[in-house]
Amino acid sequence: MIVFMPHPGLCGNERTIPSRALPVPSTVSHEMQELAAQDGAEYLGLSTQQQFDLMAKAGWNEAGTREQAAVVNQLAEKYRIKIYPREIGGVPCYFLEPEHVLSKNRNRLLVHLHGGAYTGGGGSGASWEAIRVSAISQMRTVAIDYRMPPEFPYPAAIDDAMSVWRKLVQSNKSARLGVFGTSTGGAMTLLMVQRAKKERLPLPGAIFAGTPWADMSKTGDSYFTNAYVDNVTPTYEGGLQASALLYANGRDLKDPGLSPIYGDFTRFPPTLLVAGTRDLFLSNTVRVHVRLLESGTEAKLVVLEGQSHAQYLFSETAPESHFVINQVVNFMDRHLSR
Amino acid sequence: MIVFMPHPGLCGNERTIPSRALPVPSTVSHEMQELAAQDGAEYLGLSTQQQFDLMAKAGWNEAGTREQAAVVNQLAEKYRIKIYPREIGGVPCYFLEPEHVLSKNRNRLLVHLHGGAYTGGGGSGASWEAIRVSAISQMRTVAIDYRMPPEFPYPAAIDDAMSVWRKLVQSNKSARLGVFGTSTGGAMTLLMVQRAKKERLPLPGAIFAGTPWADMSKTGDSYFTNAYVDNVTPTYEGGLQASALLYANGRDLKDPGLSPIYGDFTRFPPTLLVAGTRDLFLSNTVRVHVRLLESGTEAKLVVLEGQSHAQYLFSETAPESHFVINQVVNFMDRHLSR
Repeated sequence: MIVFMPHPGLCGNERTIPSRALPVPSTVSHEMQELAAQDGAEYLGLSTQQQFDLMAKAGWNEAGTREQAAVVNQLAEKYRIKIYPREIGGVPCYFLEPEHVLSKNRNRLLVHLHGGAYTGGGGSGASWEAIRVSAISQMRTVAIDYRMPPEFPYPAAIDDAMSVWRKLVQSNKSARLGVFGTSTGGAMTLLMVQRAKKERLPLPGAIFAGTPWADMSKTGDSYFTNAYVDNVTPTYEGGLQASALLYANGRDLKDPGLSPIYGDFTRFPPTLLVAGTRDLFLSNTVRVHVRLLESGTEAKLVVLEGQSHAQYLFSETAPESHFVINQVVNFMDRHLSR
Repeated sequence: MIVFMPHPGLCGNERTIPSRALPVPSTVSHEMQELAAQDGAEYLGLSTQQQFDLMAKAGWNEAGTREQAAVVNQLAEKYRIKIYPREIGGVPCYFLEPEHVLSKNRNRLLVHLHGGAYTGGGGSGASWEAIRVSAISQMRTVAIDYRMPPEFPYPAAIDDAMSVWRKLVQSNKSARLGVFGTSTGGAMTLLMVQRAKKERLPLPGAIFAGTPWADMSKTGDSYFTNAYVDNVTPTYEGGLQASALLYANGRDLKDPGLSPIYGDFTRFPPTLLVAGTRDLFLSNTVRVHVRLLESGTEAKLVVLEGQSHAQYLFSETAPESHFVINQVVNFMDRHLSR
């Protein structure tokens, strides 16, 4: 390539990207191809409220949560995980106990924060992502069922997470604790570390932030480049924006308490980050990664070919999903104290 | 997010992505914003041959190479690097000698492979990427001026690289040698390791493959998702495809000798990979990364916010460019033997 030789074309503040047909990627598994083939087009041309209603109808609401609970029960049975509701620090949690906890994991504990744009994913379905990680790692896991809007806007969710953390570090060496989550759960994982530093609490031994909602404002290039390319969260406008405003409750979306990208990334524990090439949150993820590298943190980024937002969670059988779960399990095993 | 709950929309082999305005990213430096504002639109609607001609006119050809040589001389002076032409294993190279070689680097040596789609970037301009790495690392560097089409199609380029490598490992401990390059140079870096393994030659201590042309066929999701989004290499069709066919000289573009993604990724040295979120080669890069992780290699991926293909090379002053060069230098320093 030629250096310092700009293209001779016009400069401007915007470029027009032509309409085009996007084929299903040939470089992913059949399971992922099926997910990639799903059409995000039902969102096109709808208002924010219409999109939000559509997402709610698709399972973002309590009915969806009930369906999730059924999925969770099936998963727990399949993976031989016992789930006990347990209050920790006054916050409802689910305690996941694998059938055989490995001896090296006896004193280790994972803490899980579910996704769902602060408006869904809770209730007894909150632990579905955690079940597989707990099963593959043979490590105990606490899944936090934090409060959510409209009844409980910011900072209820993160306050709940901190109440659990404060309680857990009283009786556990924090270096044996790992925290993880995807999407909103990934953002809350980052926020927890930032809050723990501020409150001079011990920090976890390692964290996994899957495609974290690090910037709740529409800031970050992939909100634009991957709009409509991502078929899970096709646009910022719609369900995401509505959820952001509902949770923020009038607060600036760039408040570091909402958007961890504006917070402090020094003294972070080893951090695993995962996103997809089609992911609306690709920029959320890589911006966090670069901040962590700049602060000297051991930060590992994995970007998944052809995947939209959090799509690795949407198939139980895809090799790509196994790959991510194994990345999480190995990362925790490598970094958590015994 | 809701698991196992597909969107209710239609399934199909293609989805239509609407036309849209892509703003200059607000999350990159002013220098990178200037580069991102350049319009790739001069390529739109042109035939492959017309695009190739346009790229050649912009500096892909010998005239461009002469301009590059002038840039190289300025850079060398600025960074106090002496450049000596030197034949190694019968191949013309440029030997880069920093003013002060650090004592820990006295026995270390970097090997650089230039980019340019196998059709440009050679001659005395071949070393421009290497100068800054050599200067910041205070490490000696050999930049290989390999043969290129139309006179010398595949496998001349990689044969030349192997001739240099064979010669270098006769008199250097290979663990003290690092190999690096961007784009075509990144692909050749990967190909060199694969060839060295086949020929039972010693392997480098570490490598850096910047947004490597790992798949010369139009395979990989970002060839589609980032088409026209990338303003350095806006489409596969055009200069890239023409160059690929010229170099391949009738060979299948998926031949592992051309496209390292189809080769063997076991027993690789520690590998640093860099790409951009707008990069047409994002999938080339992340596909290699996942292959390396699957083989148990220490592989580090960095994805740069808002950047098109190899754009970190196109500004000498952007903080993002310094960041990449420092990543390369630190990675080599961490992994090369003394």
